[in-house]
Amino acid sequence: MEQPLVGIIMGSDSDLEVMSEAAQTLERLGVPFEVSIVSAHRTPVQAEEYAAQAEDRGLRVIIAAAGGAAHLAGVAAAWTTLPVLGVPIRTSTMGGLDSLLSMVQMPSGVPVGVVSINGAKNAAILAAQIVALRDARVAQGLKEMKRRQADEVNAKAARLAEIGIKGYLEGMKKQ
Amino acid sequence: MEQPLVGIIMGSDSDLEVMSEAAQTLERLGVPFEVSIVSAHRTPVQAEEYAAQAEDRGLRVIIAAAGGAAHLAGVAAAWTTLPVLGVPIRTSTMGGLDSLLSMVQMPSGVPVGVVSINGAKNAAILAAQIVALRDARVAQGLKEMKRRQADEVNAKAARLAEIGIKGYLEGMKKQ
Amino acid sequence: MEQPLVGIIMGSDSDLEVMSEAAQTLERLGVPFEVSIVSAHRTPVQAEEYAAQAEDRGLRVIIAAAGGAAHLAGVAAAWTTLPVLGVPIRTSTMGGLDSLLSMVQMPSGVPVGVVSINGAKNAAILAAQIVALRDARVAQGLKEMKRRQADEVNAKAARLAEIGIKGYLEGMKKQ
Amino acid sequence: MEQPLVGIIMGSDSDLEVMSEAAQTLERLGVPFEVSIVSAHRTPVQAEEYAAQAEDRGLRVIIAAAGGAAHLAGVAAAWTTLPVLGVPIRTSTMGGLDSLLSMVQMPSGVPVGVVSINGAKNAAILAAQIVALRDARVAQGLKEMKRRQADEVNAKAARLAEIGIKGYLEGMKKQ
Amino acid sequence: MEQPLVGIIMGSDSDLEVMSEAAQTLERLGVPFEVSIVSAHRTPVQAEEYAAQAEDRGLRVIIAAAGGAAHLAGVAAAWTTLPVLGVPIRTSTMGGLDSLLSMVQMPSGVPVGVVSINGAKNAAILAAQIVALRDARVAQGLKEMKRRQADEVNAKAARLAEIGIKGYLEGMKKQ
Amino acid sequence: MEQPLVGIIMGSDSDLEVMSEAAQTLERLGVPFEVSIVSAHRTPVQAEEYAAQAEDRGLRVIIAAAGGAAHLAGVAAAWTTLPVLGVPIRTSTMGGLDSLLSMVQMPSGVPVGVVSINGAKNAAILAAQIVALRDARVAQGLKEMKRRQADEVNAKAARLAEIGIKGYLEGMKKQ
Amino acid sequence: MEQPLVGIIMGSDSDLEVMSEAAQTLERLGVPFEVSIVSAHRTPVQAEEYAAQAEDRGLRVIIAAAGGAAHLAGVAAAWTTLPVLGVPIRTSTMGGLDSLLSMVQMPSGVPVGVVSINGAKNAAILAAQIVALRDARVAQGLKEMKRRQADEVNAKAARLAEIGIKGYLEGMKKQ
Amino acid sequence: MEQPLVGIIMGSDSDLEVMSEAAQTLERLGVPFEVSIVSAHRTPVQAEEYAAQAEDRGLRVIIAAAGGAAHLAGVAAAWTTLPVLGVPIRTSTMGGLDSLLSMVQMPSGVPVGVVSINGAKNAAILAAQIVALRDARVAQGLKEMKRRQADEVNAKAARLAEIGIKGYLEGMKKQ
Repeated sequence: MEQPLVGIIMGSDSDLEVMSEAAQTLERLGVPFEVSIVSAHRTPVQAEEYAAQAEDRGLRVIIAAAGGAAHLAGVAAAWTTLPVLGVPIRTSTMGGLDSLLSMVQMPSGVPVGVVSINGAKNAAILAAQIVALRDARVAQGLKEMKRRQADEVNAKAARLAEIGIKGYLEGMKKQ
Repeated sequence: MEQPLVGIIMGSDSDLEVMSEAAQTLERLGVPFEVSIVSAHRTPVQAEEYAAQAEDRGLRVIIAAAGGAAHLAGVAAAWTTLPVLGVPIRTSTMGGLDSLLSMVQMPSGVPVGVVSINGAKNAAILAAQIVALRDARVAQGLKEMKRRQADEVNAKAARLAEIGIKGYLEGMKKQ
Repeated sequence: MEQPLVGIIMGSDSDLEVMSEAAQTLERLGVPFEVSIVSAHRTPVQAEEYAAQAEDRGLRVIIAAAGGAAHLAGVAAAWTTLPVLGVPIRTSTMGGLDSLLSMVQMPSGVPVGVVSINGAKNAAILAAQIVALRDARVAQGLKEMKRRQADEVNAKAARLAEIGIKGYLEGMKKQ
Repeated sequence: MEQPLVGIIMGSDSDLEVMSEAAQTLERLGVPFEVSIVSAHRTPVQAEEYAAQAEDRGLRVIIAAAGGAAHLAGVAAAWTTLPVLGVPIRTSTMGGLDSLLSMVQMPSGVPVGVVSINGAKNAAILAAQIVALRDARVAQGLKEMKRRQADEVNAKAARLAEIGIKGYLEGMKKQ
Repeated sequence: MEQPLVGIIMGSDSDLEVMSEAAQTLERLGVPFEVSIVSAHRTPVQAEEYAAQAEDRGLRVIIAAAGGAAHLAGVAAAWTTLPVLGVPIRTSTMGGLDSLLSMVQMPSGVPVGVVSINGAKNAAILAAQIVALRDARVAQGLKEMKRRQADEVNAKAARLAEIGIKGYLEGMKKQ
Repeated sequence: MEQPLVGIIMGSDSDLEVMSEAAQTLERLGVPFEVSIVSAHRTPVQAEEYAAQAEDRGLRVIIAAAGGAAHLAGVAAAWTTLPVLGVPIRTSTMGGLDSLLSMVQMPSGVPVGVVSINGAKNAAILAAQIVALRDARVAQGLKEMKRRQADEVNAKAARLAEIGIKGYLEGMKKQ
Repeated sequence: MEQPLVGIIMGSDSDLEVMSEAAQTLERLGVPFEVSIVSAHRTPVQAEEYAAQAEDRGLRVIIAAAGGAAHLAGVAAAWTTLPVLGVPIRTSTMGGLDSLLSMVQMPSGVPVGVVSINGAKNAAILAAQIVALRDARVAQGLKEMKRRQADEVNAKAARLAEIGIKGYLEGMKKQ
Repeated sequence: MEQPLVGIIMGSDSDLEVMSEAAQTLERLGVPFEVSIVSAHRTPVQAEEYAAQAEDRGLRVIIAAAGGAAHLAGVAAAWTTLPVLGVPIRTSTMGGLDSLLSMVQMPSGVPVGVVSINGAKNAAILAAQIVALRDARVAQGLKEMKRRQADEVNAKAARLAEIGIKGYLEGMKKQ
């Protein structure tokens, strides 16, 4: 097995479905990664150890996902000087605004780079962009993904131009 | 020196002015306490140790104050089974809503009892109410404080009835 | 029947399903409790009496749950010097932000210790942590619960490491 | 002294400056009123008695002002079937959103009619509108006040048309 | 048909289901009322006329319900000196916070008394409380309703005490 | 085909269902339009070109719809001096408050005229109102649409007056 | 005097300082305009008449500014089919979020195009962009203004490149 | 001059004071950087070119600061596959919540890593953490900075322990 470069951690297995998109994206980009469940509040020992040992274990980026009083990314950032990215998880009561503010409003000196609520895929791309600074193959993959994204939008635009709104909406419902 | 029963910690010395009111309140109620500065993000070792050793050191309640991504109370709660009370500190950007949500929306299993934004005095009273369950003198002090609070409001009401709104407002401005 | 130490009150029986988790948690921790429905607005006599007599009836902590203009915890705190914990109940219009602010922004002198929106279980644990200061058996139960919580997260992490994301997610769907 | 018809209560004398505008407005409209300080949390006995006896004492409307966890209007509404109007007081941390939500989100069955944050004058006018249903002189006063308000705006519009923006702004600065 | 004393208006027939509760409540209290649909934005002539003629037509209170940029209550208040009560209607995008702020933040001089989001029943009770100042029968009805509300809560509390949480929850599910 | 005067663009085909209402409204008003999918973030070349060439291509108004960090309208406004209208799309996490603020809080010098969340129809009417300044037929159509809207509300009011609340609500459920 | 094409109205003369920027901008762009004070709530007759007669009086766009329960733009839109632009005015309690939501969340069928809080200049530019569709000179002026804006930013960038951050900040303080 | 590795851009020179802290931090850490002013809305050509050429010009990270409808970071991310970090700038109307949401809620596929409101220093540290993955000297500097931060907090804690709250607060006021 290849040395993981990105460590994805989440506070609860209820975050796993959202975060699986981060895993898929890293896979597609050829960035070796690992996934684990550690909780800032329920397994503080593991959270601390994970972050404190991450650099020595060869990780280059940590992606931490959590919801509510989402402390996991901040706790990780307290224990490492690796870049830590945060994914605020949507909550049923506040839509994730609580998670977002808990992650993003870090005190001076201890940064977390936060992506959108449930933005697992974007955290993965951002992590890959960091890895790509030393890995031309990943850099190439990111450029292709960007192109593909544009192509997809343009293809949709072309299709809409061709078949019109009504036809397009019907096509969407069939999927 | 008496054994401190309440430990007040805060993430930054910029919180000290607000939290000094907690200290004064505990003093007035005769509850021995200690104050320190430990940061969940800048001194995670100390934050962890503080909470982990609090019970053995004889503390009965921890009051944690922090602002922004206010993780200190949550981190403390992760490392102890003592009751942890949180004081969300007002922030210049969000008025303290960020601090409040970061403190109060804790995951199931790891509680923090949160008081109002900048509510240092109330955290101290709540801590004293907990201490008072085993200390009749503190319980008595709380009852007297409650009575005094009522007396003060009633005295103000009486004064307002006597001198009217205009006189009362003028009296306030002179202070 | 054992003397109840924790009194759980709620403003409406629509809060009962959420609050039943508090009851279960106290049961599991061996903390005797009682549950009732009293409304700060619809049965103010009962709300006042409940809080005013709580100490003499042997209660040590009151847990008050309410939603919207959630005044029950504040009203209870007005009539007792026992520690009062508040559980803001989720609302369909505001997700519970209204309940949270109504509970937590108490004026100086009359504290309520507020847990997360719908955080019934955490209120129960916090109440048990307070009771535990005088009851070694409850203290022991809390420590075990904390350990069990960590074990559960670690077991999930181990399982995820073993069977991978895809397998884990499939396992979750089967439940 | 005339029988007061409107009772203005507030939770703290810090609300008095704002609420003095309510008093002035009622005075101008010839509606007899009284003002007092009673706190839902610090003097719950007085708050309850005030509301419970208001009707027998001849009051027709209660105006309750409070900030933060603003329970005073709700507590008053719990103890009377007189109309209760609420004035949410601006708070330094949340601008008064906390006061507003605490007042307005009352449970079904116990209404409070809430005006704007710091809207003391509007609460007084609304109280006068209620009193006016039985008092033609007050009704007349309200109609004249409404006309005067329109005249004032129209006079400003005329002045702006006459002297232009620059002149008007200079005139405002001189005041 | 009896002379209506309360006029219920709403901006759209999509508000009718919520507002039918206001109608039922007034009916139960024996307060004659009328219901109509007028829109501040789509039928401004009718909105203006409704409010301007309300007093002469014998109405004593106007209840206006609207959602989003909820201007109906404010427009009504602009054209009458009768008391105007506002019911902010829940919106799918903002939960009704937009409706609430649009209604409650009225400028000085033109009050609206606002109840909770979707609080149709409370608006009706408040209107009845206003009507009751001149109608002893309605006043009596309000007192009975208040007593009944208390009795209902107390009956639920008694039932909960008798059959316990589990039994109570099962009973609720059967309904 | 007639020269399109209004260009509707959206950041994703997931916005198409909402925006189809804009298309229908323009169709009904006889305003020639075109629809396309261009993303400020995924196809920045196309977004830029679309806006930069819009005037030369004969467009008079651009309607841009986007959700979340909704930059499309702002990007369009950066590249043209045609009027740009924005439709903030509802988001699952924040109800569209994020989209609204991202669109409306434009810096001085580069305006976007924003309508309500998901307000596709209103954007179309506003665009038609702009077109109508040079096209008497569209102006006429707008006046008729306004009249029809009033007629519809009045018809509903008449029906409600005739059959009462209960009958009306039953009629609505049948639809 | 030239026929005004843009009518600027505001609910209160306290909005005039902010709105004077709209006037200056229209002046600079050579768009004839008029300014007045009309209140949706205090002078509803004037507000209605203003909007109803605007088209016949030769206006092409209405800019309406208001704060709090900001109904003026919506009331104007109810009485005209001219494009109505709204400027939500900053409020001391809510920063203008109340004004923004009151303006932007208009019901289907009656649009207001809203710019940023206190965005008077942007409303003027947007109005000019609408006027420019029939006036090549204004169109030209808008293009020059856009170029000048770019030049100014580029000049600042050049100056920053030349003298560095420290020098630049010192230069700013001297102004 | 050394090849800059981090490019700091901001939408307006009013952001410079806040962002100068990012510059100082990078300087202290020995990370070569450049600073410029480019606006997504006022100089879209420059914004696009800056991002599109950043990689070829040798930059490894872009830090983009903007306020209000803060599109600069998102526009940059649209034109590069380098990691883009966003600093939401505090606004006078919304405290920066608008800036934060405009930056962080990016659509899937185009990430921005957002730090706290006005969090210029944290953006710089995060950028340095990314640079440090290939530069041992920067990595070393980050570790020392982290240690120094801890030392500072601990020194404050020691001082507080020594001289007490009163002395400490007096010392702060003297500064």
